[in-house]
Amino acid sequence: MFIKVLGSAAGGGFPQWNCNCANCQGLRDGTIQAAPRTQSSIIVSDNGKEWVLCNASPDISQQIAHTPELNKAGVLRGTHIGGIILTDSQIDHTTGLLSLREGCPHQVWCTPEVHEDLSTGFPVFTMLRHWNGGLVHHPIAPQQPFTVDACPDLQFTAVPIASNAPPYSPYRDRPLPGHNVALFIENRRNGQTLFYAPGLGEPDEALLPWLQKADCLLIDGTVWQDDELQAAGVGRNTGRDMGHLALGDEHGMMALLASLPAKRKILIHINNTNPILNEQSPQRQALTQQGIEVSWDGMAITLQDTAC
Amino acid sequence: MFIKVLGSAAGGGFPQWNCNCANCQGLRDGTIQAAPRTQSSIIVSDNGKEWVLCNASPDISQQIAHTPELNKAGVLRGTHIGGIILTDSQIDHTTGLLSLREGCPHQVWCTPEVHEDLSTGFPVFTMLRHWNGGLVHHPIAPQQPFTVDACPDLQFTAVPIASNAPPYSPYRDRPLPGHNVALFIENRRNGQTLFYAPGLGEPDEALLPWLQKADCLLIDGTVWQDDELQAAGVGRNTGRDMGHLALGDEHGMMALLASLPAKRKILIHINNTNPILNEQSPQRQALTQQGIEVSWDGMAITLQDTAC
Repeated sequence: MFIKVLGSAAGGGFPQWNCNCANCQGLRDGTIQAAPRTQSSIIVSDNGKEWVLCNASPDISQQIAHTPELNKAGVLRGTHIGGIILTDSQIDHTTGLLSLREGCPHQVWCTPEVHEDLSTGFPVFTMLRHWNGGLVHHPIAPQQPFTVDACPDLQFTAVPIASNAPPYSPYRDRPLPGHNVALFIENRRNGQTLFYAPGLGEPDEALLPWLQKADCLLIDGTVWQDDELQAAGVGRNTGRDMGHLALGDEHGMMALLASLPAKRKILIHINNTNPILNEQSPQRQALTQQGIEVSWDGMAITLQDTAC
Repeated sequence: MFIKVLGSAAGGGFPQWNCNCANCQGLRDGTIQAAPRTQSSIIVSDNGKEWVLCNASPDISQQIAHTPELNKAGVLRGTHIGGIILTDSQIDHTTGLLSLREGCPHQVWCTPEVHEDLSTGFPVFTMLRHWNGGLVHHPIAPQQPFTVDACPDLQFTAVPIASNAPPYSPYRDRPLPGHNVALFIENRRNGQTLFYAPGLGEPDEALLPWLQKADCLLIDGTVWQDDELQAAGVGRNTGRDMGHLALGDEHGMMALLASLPAKRKILIHINNTNPILNEQSPQRQALTQQGIEVSWDGMAITLQDTAC
């Protein structure tokens, strides 16, 4: 299985357009060792030629421009994006659909709950009907494996996770199970598996078996501590309010990852306030010591048959 | 008056994410002399410190990152964007509002028609209510001068222009006068004037006096010929269908500009199919010979008191 990280930051990107926190200012000034990051999105493939886009960030145009794998030579218009899967209806995971309108129709897999948000509160599906067939919705149901024609060897399973619905959604603070899903992706040829969860609030019992059987975890690294936005003076929401389990808290993401057998544990969806963005921070060192990687824009991950 | 071009391309940018036309491919390969361009937006200012954003493109985050004038030092979060004016409700002029949500509330000037589109078909105003005060609408009426607190010396006047409503709007192909406006901007201290019209379908009698009295025109350069998209094989719409007067047609934009006395005539909102993007094309040479400039991302324009 081939995976490429298009964007590794949480909403707002890094540096965030209006932010002068220690990280954002340090990156602009060159006083910290860190790399700029666009908003969270990945592509996955079974053959490295045709790809499935997981989430469409507002930075999608810039991301595609930096991903030559997606450029389709020999056609006047087109790319190697063969399908799109959405894990939720958050603005930072879906706004990019508007920027893909010149390439409609697109095949889009998401739950009925996400489709509802994207047909009412943020009606991307409705809007894009006016562009050459728009977005063709393929409903997905929790725990029901599905495939995408472009990558037939990959089997995707949506796994409901505890998180939140977007602020614009009528389901904010009372989400249904379909409002947030992780993706368990298995290469049926070699059995290699990826668990992708850019937003993960509270792992419950139903989720653990999926986490335990994944060869690679690409998982929520939004905040280091639950009250990080308050501590930085940039917001009132806690990680928990936004549906993100803090990395460094007592029963946080690092503790969870320590208990899991995955060969690679990689963080994604990292907020600009998170000290792990500073490559010389003690928090980053703590991750490294525990074998946890921090994804970056353009990071390529290949999961190979261990028998090869 | 200070003007800076944040983005000089039409919708899709240049190169467009999914396009291999001669221009887009030539730019990627380095076989034509051309510069990449993000989607259309400008900032204007009376003092070069506080700015008014005119249109918010999907590329706004990237554009702000490349515009140090907007970075506001000494505050934890903030920028020097003191107000936002929208000339229409097109996706490529308004999607960026979603990316500015972390900085809400924002003061937004637009016509009731644009506000209606952005509260129904593409409900950005409604969505962003959930972010710290969201977007505060200041209605503007045709021909009625208004000011923006951040730049008190600038007087703005919305001038209705013949163009179209967005494809997602119920008013598509039957736009009301408020669906598309140009901006006539006057510096009340020195009398210098800018006419800004990124989309201009058919100049009518009511528009001509505004065009004639502007010192600087920053105006629709979308297509060279009306059937350009068809000729390139990338679309069926004509320039006219999309509300853009072709540059090179017999009664096109170049002919119009030749009849106007403005000291500077600068094109903006240039589509990726337009041959003028190739700096060595005969069409570009024709513009140069007629004294018409082609804007680029980062272009700074200063209109000074001629008596200085």
